[in-house]
Amino acid sequence: MHNQLPKHVKIVEVGPRDGLQNEKEAVSAAVKIELVDRLSRAGFTNIEAASFVSPKWVPQMATSAEVMAGIARRPGTLYSALTPNMQGFEAALAAQADEVVIFGSASEAFSQRNINCSIAESIARFEPVAKAAKDNGLRLRGSISCAFGCPYQGDVPLDAVADVVGRMRDLGCDEIDIADTIGVSTPRKTQAVMETAARAFALDRISGHFHDTYGQALANIYASLELGVTIFHSSVSGLGGCPYAKGATGNVATEDVVYMLNGLGIETGIALDIVVEAGAFISQHLGRKGASRAGNALLAKRTL
Amino acid sequence: MHNQLPKHVKIVEVGPRDGLQNEKEAVSAAVKIELVDRLSRAGFTNIEAASFVSPKWVPQMATSAEVMAGIARRPGTLYSALTPNMQGFEAALAAQADEVVIFGSASEAFSQRNINCSIAESIARFEPVAKAAKDNGLRLRGSISCAFGCPYQGDVPLDAVADVVGRMRDLGCDEIDIADTIGVSTPRKTQAVMETAARAFALDRISGHFHDTYGQALANIYASLELGVTIFHSSVSGLGGCPYAKGATGNVATEDVVYMLNGLGIETGIALDIVVEAGAFISQHLGRKGASRAGNALLAKRTL
Repeated sequence: MHNQLPKHVKIVEVGPRDGLQNEKEAVSAAVKIELVDRLSRAGFTNIEAASFVSPKWVPQMATSAEVMAGIARRPGTLYSALTPNMQGFEAALAAQADEVVIFGSASEAFSQRNINCSIAESIARFEPVAKAAKDNGLRLRGSISCAFGCPYQGDVPLDAVADVVGRMRDLGCDEIDIADTIGVSTPRKTQAVMETAARAFALDRISGHFHDTYGQALANIYASLELGVTIFHSSVSGLGGCPYAKGATGNVATEDVVYMLNGLGIETGIALDIVVEAGAFISQHLGRKGASRAGNALLAKRTL
Repeated sequence: MHNQLPKHVKIVEVGPRDGLQNEKEAVSAAVKIELVDRLSRAGFTNIEAASFVSPKWVPQMATSAEVMAGIARRPGTLYSALTPNMQGFEAALAAQADEVVIFGSASEAFSQRNINCSIAESIARFEPVAKAAKDNGLRLRGSISCAFGCPYQGDVPLDAVADVVGRMRDLGCDEIDIADTIGVSTPRKTQAVMETAARAFALDRISGHFHDTYGQALANIYASLELGVTIFHSSVSGLGGCPYAKGATGNVATEDVVYMLNGLGIETGIALDIVVEAGAFISQHLGRKGASRAGNALLAKRTL
């Protein structure tokens, strides 16, 4: 009746990049550096810290080189950067990123609407980046958006997920993210998608990236753990809104995920109290209440 | 690998009582009546609508008789009332409650701190209420707080849960709630507690009452579904804070639960869109943003 759960899980902290990129308020490089350093001290072995994309398109990420130059690198922690093209790759290499992230969608409609080309074309364009990553000894991660549903086309077929996972694998990705970009999945759907991905790529190198837009993220993570998924993305204090539903929640909060994993007896190597402090720090800078329920409850308990 | 999930789940909507009792702002009887009627129209078959307790102790519930007299009873819906003693029972009977609710704690420390007597004594005191309920053909529900953890003693032994479930059963309860009053449980702990309860009482008459204080409620509900639990409590728009951590979240939001059950293909008979409207209605009266993530996302989508 009870499936065995993994003994160890890796959490990829995406708050400094995916989170802050989707917040209304931009924060300074100094604040980002402080945030990344606090997260490093909390024990994360992988932090998504930068995106080397045109500041014309993503002004929040314009200080990525400055951030990467300013952080105190913790031995054992990989600092990742998004690289949309070779120009971004060269910048990531210069900034000494440990891992570069390429991305595509499992939704044909999303791909067409966002980058005006098919999924297959969008992935093929990353070939030079993937080759350069290998040539330079950098880790390569592939991120697949809208794998559980799309704001434009609604349902996304499992075959489309399998196809794009295969394309990312063939590019040489070391790790592949299966993302619920709009947070619409529920546990059994999650298991079906993750099982599909695991038929095309090694289960222990697949990560789950769940948004909490409909409050489902932890249930989806738990359902993924039951299948043996051991890598999850989360964002300190739930940084990052949902661009497709203004005012709604985005990334699942790291504090909530770590709280659950601690309760399940799954080792993460992460000090929850330091994450809670980091969440309070960045929420204060953004002038808003943190979006982590566990974080808010733990902070409230201190003031009793 | 995949356990079979139940085909049908009953949701007990506790917002009008458990929820509003724990909100800072009191609302008028007229607003409560409108809320209950909206929830009836949404299709709930069980709504916790009143508490016949001294208004000295719980001023928010002082209008319970007025609320029960003013609501439009939907055929097929049971309206429940808390009855701490025979005086409360007589009031509930006069108000034509369909079900009366008695309560105790699985935590000895909680029982001592809150009502100055042992768990065993506190349950024994309900004997006349239980007998009167049976004599008058009313349904009897027993609610067990702190079954997963206690704000005073921390851990609560499984034996203590089994013991109080047995006492509630022996009083003749038709249904027994296992409540995570402070929202500290995680999925495997939840399964251990629910399995313990199910050894002392019929599984199909056990309900899970989960608070979302640490964001764990949906994961706990999903883990309970895997065991075959078919009754859950929830509160529209997440009404009800956590009295043990100011500013933290309390009851799990009904909208989030229904969204998950819909996604899992589990029938509830509840119209999610009407629940979302009811949540917007009461949140507006309380002058705060709703605490349901699914509710907020669905409302935000409408304004796109």
